[in-house]
Amino acid sequence: MSLADRAIAGEVRAAARLMRIADDRTGDYIQEMVKIWAHTGHARIIGITGAPGSGKSTLTDALITHYRSLGKSVGVAAVDPSSPFSGGAILGDRIRMATHANDEGVFIRSVATRGHLGGLSVSAMDIAAIFDAMGKDIIIIETVGVGQDEVDISSLADTCIVVVMPGAGDDIQAIKAGILEVADIFVVNKADRDGADRTARDLKTMLELGAKRVWMPPVVKTIALKKSGIEELAEGIALHSNYSDNEDKHFARLYHAALGLLKDRLVNSCFTPDRFRELLKTQGDPYSVTIKWLKNHGLEA
Amino acid sequence: MSLADRAIAGEVRAAARLMRIADDRTGDYIQEMVKIWAHTGHARIIGITGAPGSGKSTLTDALITHYRSLGKSVGVAAVDPSSPFSGGAILGDRIRMATHANDEGVFIRSVATRGHLGGLSVSAMDIAAIFDAMGKDIIIIETVGVGQDEVDISSLADTCIVVVMPGAGDDIQAIKAGILEVADIFVVNKADRDGADRTARDLKTMLELGAKRVWMPPVVKTIALKKSGIEELAEGIALHSNYSDNEDKHFARLYHAALGLLKDRLVNSCFTPDRFRELLKTQGDPYSVTIKWLKNHGLEA
Repeated sequence: MSLADRAIAGEVRAAARLMRIADDRTGDYIQEMVKIWAHTGHARIIGITGAPGSGKSTLTDALITHYRSLGKSVGVAAVDPSSPFSGGAILGDRIRMATHANDEGVFIRSVATRGHLGGLSVSAMDIAAIFDAMGKDIIIIETVGVGQDEVDISSLADTCIVVVMPGAGDDIQAIKAGILEVADIFVVNKADRDGADRTARDLKTMLELGAKRVWMPPVVKTIALKKSGIEELAEGIALHSNYSDNEDKHFARLYHAALGLLKDRLVNSCFTPDRFRELLKTQGDPYSVTIKWLKNHGLEA
Repeated sequence: MSLADRAIAGEVRAAARLMRIADDRTGDYIQEMVKIWAHTGHARIIGITGAPGSGKSTLTDALITHYRSLGKSVGVAAVDPSSPFSGGAILGDRIRMATHANDEGVFIRSVATRGHLGGLSVSAMDIAAIFDAMGKDIIIIETVGVGQDEVDISSLADTCIVVVMPGAGDDIQAIKAGILEVADIFVVNKADRDGADRTARDLKTMLELGAKRVWMPPVVKTIALKKSGIEELAEGIALHSNYSDNEDKHFARLYHAALGLLKDRLVNSCFTPDRFRELLKTQGDPYSVTIKWLKNHGLEA
């Protein structure tokens, strides 16, 4: 049986190995992933994003505990380089949250952020697809830097949670500038700190002043370390699933994965740096090279 | 005269307009950019990155003042959504640092982070190219989230400065996990705060324990708000230019720009979401669609 078949049958070791070759883009990963993709579209994909230190990992941990208590299986992909989950991927010593280490219903995978083309977010999608094909009910993708990437988690997750910390105009400034539109749910974590109520209130005001929408993002206060506010958060996630077009998000993930592979293949086979360097010599600038290359391949309207 | 010709001649309004159409990817921006790219390769491009709140904008401000005092012209592209520079791009009220508002030798441009495909970092490269063609001596690209993007500033700037704040294992944890390798210079900003010496010492230790390299990144303490440490930082930047392969970095920028345009054209002309949706119907999964599409166009080895 292929790795994909074994992963689909729920075999953790095969899934872990497939994630590794998908991440490295080695071996027969494309043929394996073809099988995997055919088995996706069932899991609920939750994105958790926020600045380093806002407590995303602790919140993820609390959500895992919550969903496990309901008997749901959970997969976690951590693409935050400062996360304790993904620290391991970079440093070589893969760390699992101690709490869930012996729970077979939980599968945590860190995604290295190596910065190679088409790598990061595409790998995260591959990993989410493998979790999905394995039959995980809930998939959590933890990431920093919403609004930074070309395509960010808010367009790929069914529900996008933005975590902020109490206090300070700085946070609110950051919120103003881009993340207000992408959050389906706001979490004010570390809500036992000074200024939590004010931050929550400011967020609500800004949301009310903003564009009208069918789904108004709730603002949930949590103390993830003490598992406080997690039920309310989970309720918000459940409610949001009635409002979000999950098929649309699934299509966005498929298209994103296709574009990632497309770019990857082009960079590695026919639009390589070496080839580009040659073309640049005769054509002088990157845009002329690109337009001419597209025309030569019948790809330009 | 075209916008590009006028920008190359140093006309600020034409340059600003060209940046706008390049950012929006409207009009004749490709033909204009072809002219611009032919005039690039002279400026020194400095990347400044670090978490929100680390003081990147204040540091940028201090560096502008420094370089202006030496008679050098400066262009700034801010791609940090939480930056006071780029706040304007998103909120609609474009903000310039008050200090430099009347200085014709300084041109600050914020880059909206709208998350559309091929948008963010490619736009930043277009803007840097326009600065370069205008004859700016120094170009500063301010960004958050190094190690997050597929391609980050460290592979595109001649010198990459990573700004950290004093204190806490959190910072060091984040540093461990990815940014140690990408920094050409470390800045411990807000160095009048507790723990600055320790953070600087920890950084140095980690660098010394890491892989041997020809250029050992210096760790510079600054208080950007008081313009303290800026001379030393500028000295570090100047020294680093003797060690970095600027032609290599310039090539990386050209290739990155080409890939951005390539992806943009594919997404908008022959590998559109609608076309992909059709292909998906008969072929079932994103990777089969992509591989078959590449083969049909003679693009797969």
